[in-house]
Amino acid sequence: MRKEGRLIRWVWWILLVTALFLLGFIIGWFAKPSHTNKEDHKASNEYLREFLDEMQADRIREHLRKFTRLPHLAGTEQNLKYAEQIKEEWQEFGLDSVEMVPYDVLLSYPNKSQPNYISIVDQLGTEVFVTSLAEPVPQGYEDVTDIVPPFSAFSAKGQPEGDLVYVNYGRTEDFVQLQREMGINVTGKIVIVRYGKIFRGNKVKNAMLAGAKGVIMFSDPADYWATGVQPYPDGWNLPGGGAQRGNVLNLNGAGDPLTPGYPAKEYTYRFSMEEGVGLPDIPVHPIGFNDAIHLLKNMGGQIPPNNWKGALNVSYRIGPGFTDDIKSQKVRMNIYSNNQITRIYNVIGKIRGALEPDRYVILGGHRDAWVFGGIDPMSGAAVIHEAVRSAGLLLGKGWRPRRSIIFASWDAEEFGLLGSTEWAEDNARLLQQRAVAYINADSAIEGMYTLRVDCTPSLHTLVYDLTKQIASPEEGEEGISLYESWHKRDNWTNDRDAPRISKLGSGSDFEAYFIRLGIAAGRARYTKDMKTERYSSYPVYHSVYETFEIVEQFYDPSFRRLRAVAQVRGGLTVLLANSQLLPLDANEYADALGKYAQSIAQLAAKNPDEMVKYEVSFDSLFSAVQNFTVAARDFHERLKTLNRDDPLQVRLVNDQLMYLERAFIDPLGLPGRPFYRHVIFAPSSHNKYAGESFPGIYDALFDIQNSADPKKAWQEVKRQISIAAFTVHAAAMTLTPPA
Amino acid sequence: MRKEGRLIRWVWWILLVTALFLLGFIIGWFAKPSHTNKEDHKASNEYLREFLDEMQADRIREHLRKFTRLPHLAGTEQNLKYAEQIKEEWQEFGLDSVEMVPYDVLLSYPNKSQPNYISIVDQLGTEVFVTSLAEPVPQGYEDVTDIVPPFSAFSAKGQPEGDLVYVNYGRTEDFVQLQREMGINVTGKIVIVRYGKIFRGNKVKNAMLAGAKGVIMFSDPADYWATGVQPYPDGWNLPGGGAQRGNVLNLNGAGDPLTPGYPAKEYTYRFSMEEGVGLPDIPVHPIGFNDAIHLLKNMGGQIPPNNWKGALNVSYRIGPGFTDDIKSQKVRMNIYSNNQITRIYNVIGKIRGALEPDRYVILGGHRDAWVFGGIDPMSGAAVIHEAVRSAGLLLGKGWRPRRSIIFASWDAEEFGLLGSTEWAEDNARLLQQRAVAYINADSAIEGMYTLRVDCTPSLHTLVYDLTKQIASPEEGEEGISLYESWHKRDNWTNDRDAPRISKLGSGSDFEAYFIRLGIAAGRARYTKDMKTERYSSYPVYHSVYETFEIVEQFYDPSFRRLRAVAQVRGGLTVLLANSQLLPLDANEYADALGKYAQSIAQLAAKNPDEMVKYEVSFDSLFSAVQNFTVAARDFHERLKTLNRDDPLQVRLVNDQLMYLERAFIDPLGLPGRPFYRHVIFAPSSHNKYAGESFPGIYDALFDIQNSADPKKAWQEVKRQISIAAFTVHAAAMTLTPPA
Repeated sequence: MRKEGRLIRWVWWILLVTALFLLGFIIGWFAKPSHTNKEDHKASNEYLREFLDEMQADRIREHLRKFTRLPHLAGTEQNLKYAEQIKEEWQEFGLDSVEMVPYDVLLSYPNKSQPNYISIVDQLGTEVFVTSLAEPVPQGYEDVTDIVPPFSAFSAKGQPEGDLVYVNYGRTEDFVQLQREMGINVTGKIVIVRYGKIFRGNKVKNAMLAGAKGVIMFSDPADYWATGVQPYPDGWNLPGGGAQRGNVLNLNGAGDPLTPGYPAKEYTYRFSMEEGVGLPDIPVHPIGFNDAIHLLKNMGGQIPPNNWKGALNVSYRIGPGFTDDIKSQKVRMNIYSNNQITRIYNVIGKIRGALEPDRYVILGGHRDAWVFGGIDPMSGAAVIHEAVRSAGLLLGKGWRPRRSIIFASWDAEEFGLLGSTEWAEDNARLLQQRAVAYINADSAIEGMYTLRVDCTPSLHTLVYDLTKQIASPEEGEEGISLYESWHKRDNWTNDRDAPRISKLGSGSDFEAYFIRLGIAAGRARYTKDMKTERYSSYPVYHSVYETFEIVEQFYDPSFRRLRAVAQVRGGLTVLLANSQLLPLDANEYADALGKYAQSIAQLAAKNPDEMVKYEVSFDSLFSAVQNFTVAARDFHERLKTLNRDDPLQVRLVNDQLMYLERAFIDPLGLPGRPFYRHVIFAPSSHNKYAGESFPGIYDALFDIQNSADPKKAWQEVKRQISIAAFTVHAAAMTLTPPA
Repeated sequence: MRKEGRLIRWVWWILLVTALFLLGFIIGWFAKPSHTNKEDHKASNEYLREFLDEMQADRIREHLRKFTRLPHLAGTEQNLKYAEQIKEEWQEFGLDSVEMVPYDVLLSYPNKSQPNYISIVDQLGTEVFVTSLAEPVPQGYEDVTDIVPPFSAFSAKGQPEGDLVYVNYGRTEDFVQLQREMGINVTGKIVIVRYGKIFRGNKVKNAMLAGAKGVIMFSDPADYWATGVQPYPDGWNLPGGGAQRGNVLNLNGAGDPLTPGYPAKEYTYRFSMEEGVGLPDIPVHPIGFNDAIHLLKNMGGQIPPNNWKGALNVSYRIGPGFTDDIKSQKVRMNIYSNNQITRIYNVIGKIRGALEPDRYVILGGHRDAWVFGGIDPMSGAAVIHEAVRSAGLLLGKGWRPRRSIIFASWDAEEFGLLGSTEWAEDNARLLQQRAVAYINADSAIEGMYTLRVDCTPSLHTLVYDLTKQIASPEEGEEGISLYESWHKRDNWTNDRDAPRISKLGSGSDFEAYFIRLGIAAGRARYTKDMKTERYSSYPVYHSVYETFEIVEQFYDPSFRRLRAVAQVRGGLTVLLANSQLLPLDANEYADALGKYAQSIAQLAAKNPDEMVKYEVSFDSLFSAVQNFTVAARDFHERLKTLNRDDPLQVRLVNDQLMYLERAFIDPLGLPGRPFYRHVIFAPSSHNKYAGESFPGIYDALFDIQNSADPKKAWQEVKRQISIAAFTVHAAAMTLTPPA
């Protein structure tokens, strides 16, 4: 008994000891954290709400007020001062680092002692009319010096004199119509075109190709007046004395004209001015419609078709030259602007990522303005500023995003996207390898109607998800989301029941990131009602009337629209930086490719006989798109069973998502445009602002119309289809399992 | 007392329970594996030994025997059969997947019904001499059909007739000397040049630029005979009836001439033959020295300097044409070869990586041979085969490398690196993003002296480490390492006390991977004594005498040299695939850049006056190299404290190492050579075989000698220095902490 008792006791003892040990072991085992950062899952949403809510309309108003008091043209002292101020404030807001990054790029300024103007001279050489040397300065800014008068940056110098020819918007089709249907040759003439429809640099290129010796661009009320709106300061229309500044380069993404492909540093080799990229070799000058009336009213020649007529009280005769009675009067351009290499400054602020510091999400926009920049770009810069402030606050509370965030205040955007492009060139390798996405922040508002988003297809889903979490800024829409507000105003009716999202074109700082480097990119702003408001961009665009007041009094008195834009731009940035799995959607890209392929094939199908004759087929492209569609679907299917606790497996699929956009880059570039390398998206060769899908095929098809050798032209179409099909196949491969 | 006793007991109890629990907890905590795969650390070395030891000389002999029985020119049925056999055997060896990857590329073959030859014709048009139509077939192969006779692949068709001019090796300097010093213009002449010193395609390009209408290339015993060695089959020298086949393209890395930049698939757009890249437009033909004597012996004209004279018993007069007595006799080339689009097949075998399947280490070499390929390439193919077998065995034992390994048997290397380049084009995006290194496996032996390694500087350290773990294959060197054996035979005397490692040039399949895509690359083979053996490559190169027997009887009877090469190539592959931290050394790259910068600056300094006049400075380049050196040192310093248990941190630094080579790639390419994109290494424009450092600067300096506009030529030097400096700076940035 006693022995037995002892034995039992021992057994109990051993059981107890074992049980306790096992309990400890099990608790120890599970107490030890696995590698996944579970907080990370939570963080994404929790901190997003806080980040969005922290952004305040009044703060944005303050930022905008602060940075629009003085003109701050690129390369001027004032723009450097604002850069320093932004740097200081970003540091105060709590970024990990902020630095100024200078480049020495080619800029263009009017000659201060010899103003640019256009005159009408009689046969004695007497100037019988001269255009104004400046815009009337708006109230409250009378004492401001250093307002640069309207000019065309990078115009050639010169005093060409001759007969005017009016060529509507100066588009390729306008010049074709002029020559073929109206029988007018502009060789040796000065052309006058109205602003609008296409990028002004394309107008100048077309005029040069046609042989013109000068270009005058004017703002017609047909294109720069909204109906029922008063001119500034009583409303937001362009006054008759206002004119649109702007560069007239044809850079095609080259950045600084003298250092294409490389950052414009001190040691960098510079081409001579003659070798520079995209510099026009004829004088160009912009005028307002008060001045334009004087040039147009006495023109002779044919009366053009109605779609060439603007809203001025003149006949819009095309010339050449004036009516018979004053035929001897000529137009003379007097252009004395200088190109000069000038130092510019980007401000670059960073938040180091907690887990993947080598993955970058970039939120960038420019700071330089033609004058005050009330809309362009400071409405956007104010938004970035507020996003930095809000992110800084979160950092102070212990938050740190999974990936690094880079905030950029670019310089010299107005001179050809120079600051952003030089920085992209400088950091090309890092960006190629590490950049997840680029969110652009130019003007945050160009209308009072609804949201406008242009982005790469893989961002569609994220944009929709995010805007559902943001409140509508419109009065009377309390409680409804930005998504709903946007959806009811601009439905993508034929394609799908969702708010419309457009393709990215060019004309702002995302260009080098998206079209050269293949980084997923997007932009968002508040816009007008495209269905009813037919004017180009917004009326006071690039004039002295882009003031703080025009935003405060007309565009967004509550600053809630700008706040909504801030929440979209900032929210995209934070979600891209912080989500464990990158919120990029390859299925959306597949859908988009399918539509683009249909669309370009339909364009080609307008030439059914040639399609047969030259054996042109889109089968390879459709087959590639089909292939991509399957790859994308399977990829997202596999994501559902991904082991999210394995950091290498998560990284692997994130890399596939990150590099998806990169896969559409062809290092050989588009024909004749070595810095436009995106096979799916690039601006049309005929309008930098318009984003075309399959731009190589599109341009080849466009060229057929004007080609002297149709066989060769169709061979180029076939070659471009082949490149597009290959590229889509190659992109599909990047989505398949890696080995 | 009793109460106290109870209390004490309880305290004891509680202590015991707590202690047991804690013990369990602690053991549990530590028992749970951290994320690092500790096995991984061990595995690398343990499995390396096993992998190396498993490779057997006799097996390599068997592989070589098996794959050299029949001619297997690219595009022939036999080469497809070998591909299928390799595929099957690799599958049997245990690879995870093996596939055939076809492309349709432009190849070139003699016309079977109209043989190519060269004749001497008298004034009546009678052929008084004709060159042989084939090489005498070596013993044992008499019944073999389908031996392609010696020809110059991609030669133009044609029957040019005219006077001969002898231009030594046909180098740029030879043509310059001919024109400037000897006063001979070759326009309309047929040039005869000896093989050697430079790539034959460069000879043809030089002849075309000089205006020649045909090129004859011959093998001179001065360049293709080793002293004291008998011609094959009694020794390994080239018989007088032997001749060197080879392509005469100037592709500059384009791959298939009709589809530059894109893989030659069924749907791919093809340029016309006239638009094709690098196709010569004059006839070219190779002959042996028996035939050459007949063409050379009666030549008239000047006697050239001694360094133009070979070892034949003729005067090497340069012409033009024959001696006066037979001046009316002319030379006629009769070339009927055809270019034709032909299907080729790569064999691609894969081992999926265990932890990082999306990182690739590639071991590739070609399979196609001009005839039997006893040395070129099957000595290399046999080595890959054995490496696959050994890796397969390890897989069977449960091993799996950290990263994926890709084995490749390339086709159509002899026709311009076509198989490897098309596959690189096809997979460019995946390779850019994921490829860690490319190890090349062409001919494994070209001499009987010691190891030869050409590789990117970041592989130096790994090559040294590995060769210390491999036994010397030389008789009498039992117990000493390959490293020691190599070191004592070929010390890098002036630079450092270590075996010499050279720069990569071109002429084999690593080209697209290294020079176009920027993937760290290396090659290794057994070689001759460069100090005493002055012949070019090896005597029977590209002749019918490259048999199994020449290897078995002369080059490596024990097959231990080939085994050592297998161990180097395979060992590099396995270490790169399996090491937790990538065994790449940025410090070695820094040292190399320093030397290259010194060297190119010294080359420029030969023009001191112009350097001053045109303000040419290398300061920016030296400063960039200094910057890189600091970044590399700091990088490796930080590695010492890396938390190797954090998989994301390990991945981050590995990505920096992997992308270091990529950082030297300029997508704009070198001037006029869009597919040579490596700013540090590319073949000279004057000899594809020779790797130059800073090739852009080198070529610009070379061009100065012949430029009509020295100012412009020196501007180009300055531009290239600027590009080099920028690139080195940019590469340094990739090594700094990422945010």
